[in-house]
Amino acid sequence: MQLVTIDDIRAAADRIRDAVLRTPLVPAGWAGDPDRPLWLKPESLQAVGAFKVRGAFHAIGRLDPDVRARGVVAYSSGNHAQAVAFAAARFGCPAHIVMPEETPAVKVEATRGHGAEVVLCGPGRREAVAAELVERTGGVLVPPFDHPDIIAGQGTVGLEIAEDLPDVDNVLVPVSGGGLASGIGTAIKALCPHAKVFGVEPELAADTAEALRLGHRVDWPIERRNRTIADGLRSQPSELTFAHLQQVLDDVFTVTEDEITDAVRELTFRAHLVAEPSGAVGLAAYRRRVTPPGRTVVVVSGGNIEPSALQRILAD
Amino acid sequence: MQLVTIDDIRAAADRIRDAVLRTPLVPAGWAGDPDRPLWLKPESLQAVGAFKVRGAFHAIGRLDPDVRARGVVAYSSGNHAQAVAFAAARFGCPAHIVMPEETPAVKVEATRGHGAEVVLCGPGRREAVAAELVERTGGVLVPPFDHPDIIAGQGTVGLEIAEDLPDVDNVLVPVSGGGLASGIGTAIKALCPHAKVFGVEPELAADTAEALRLGHRVDWPIERRNRTIADGLRSQPSELTFAHLQQVLDDVFTVTEDEITDAVRELTFRAHLVAEPSGAVGLAAYRRRVTPPGRTVVVVSGGNIEPSALQRILAD
Repeated sequence: MQLVTIDDIRAAADRIRDAVLRTPLVPAGWAGDPDRPLWLKPESLQAVGAFKVRGAFHAIGRLDPDVRARGVVAYSSGNHAQAVAFAAARFGCPAHIVMPEETPAVKVEATRGHGAEVVLCGPGRREAVAAELVERTGGVLVPPFDHPDIIAGQGTVGLEIAEDLPDVDNVLVPVSGGGLASGIGTAIKALCPHAKVFGVEPELAADTAEALRLGHRVDWPIERRNRTIADGLRSQPSELTFAHLQQVLDDVFTVTEDEITDAVRELTFRAHLVAEPSGAVGLAAYRRRVTPPGRTVVVVSGGNIEPSALQRILAD
Repeated sequence: MQLVTIDDIRAAADRIRDAVLRTPLVPAGWAGDPDRPLWLKPESLQAVGAFKVRGAFHAIGRLDPDVRARGVVAYSSGNHAQAVAFAAARFGCPAHIVMPEETPAVKVEATRGHGAEVVLCGPGRREAVAAELVERTGGVLVPPFDHPDIIAGQGTVGLEIAEDLPDVDNVLVPVSGGGLASGIGTAIKALCPHAKVFGVEPELAADTAEALRLGHRVDWPIERRNRTIADGLRSQPSELTFAHLQQVLDDVFTVTEDEITDAVRELTFRAHLVAEPSGAVGLAAYRRRVTPPGRTVVVVSGGNIEPSALQRILAD
């Protein structure tokens, strides 16, 4: 299997430079752990509130203009939906986004707000509906993680970390479908070979931690993964992303639900960043002091939290 | 009176480069006003949660090393206290910070956390206590805004805006003592002469709006200014900052308390930024559509909000 390379990631960075925010590496002296000086990479500041715009811009940008003109299709109830809608609008191409009927209205509206056509579907039907749309429109499916262009796009986060902190020792990245961790890991291992890259998962959706231990992918039923509050971390790696993760991750740490909400609170009041639970797992792992000592970067992958959920967490 | 120049601000930028976060200009497409595309300058991401580190680093950095070794003194119940404590620690010099007895414990602890010695004082006594400390220690008083080095340091915010968005049309800046607005206005007027710079104040502490209209400084009693929730905007310009504001501000807009809390909520859920009320007044003014059309930058000056206050605002 052909893995994404640092050259692919550099090319992605060139392609998305004008469309995506180059997020700063924010020193977090308030963390107060002199053995592990902390920096945050706040992807929550991206246009749609998450790193997903990087992969979406890159994948859509790589399409042949004639193909792109037919439009793009995606299925997602989360940040990928908005990212594809946003990127398609920038390229002036139509976007059909398939979302489950139970998607919160605010997310449906946000996706429509970028000019996408939202197609609601019943449980378990989204892939079939997306396939029908591809058939009917001649558009191209933009997958959330299972594609080299997506992985290379997300990898630009790692490129920026390596540029801004070349002597980084540890990078903590949330893992779900594994596109972000695959890309960041590839960039960091190429540019900072001494650095360690760690995935982080909720204990309640720790399929990748188990899979890497066993040396092969495992399937946790979706009902089991759905237990975590970190709704962006309920996917599982594909064959392609798993191959990357085996190559580039030094380990995967797991965190509890309480640790995740503590991290959301800490990001709010100490870093002044609003993170969704999925975006806060890196800080939760940092607080366990599980990494080796050294300069540590936590990737805050997204900030799209329901207002009621944030209120509940802050009130705890 | 000698005003700060763009060369002073450039020199300040060189001096503070390694110590202060170069905050990004964050596109805020969610604002949804095509006549006024919006960018945010999130100074809330600075080490102590506010722009104040810029001026403090610059002022302390400009001291003669022998003088600096005797230490610095400041009086503040707010962000300036932590900024001076933080900057002094980086220079390895002692800091005495005078704070009113009623300062929330969390702020006293944060200031002590940077290694400063906190001296609590009774009402109306802080300037006298600070003067005694200067006398006793031989240290240097670092004022919150009334000094060219502070103004030049804060002006680096404007320099960065001009670098990142040279064709900016409007800049909205909170006004209190006026150091930030003086510095930003000086930089913007020098580098983007066609751009307009607007101050923003709470209606309940609108002394500068009135003063600029009258052409001379006015004194609003502190009890009157204390009515606003924007606790960082209760100071009044000095002779020095007022002279700058007369020169560089095109106007000052005022916003209501409800508009301020609406803006805090919008920054939380749309921009994923935690802002203190003082830091949100720029967005509140933007929402009034009071500026001319054009590319608009809102400076989010700080993020240090009491947890209970944020919870109350988000629950509204």
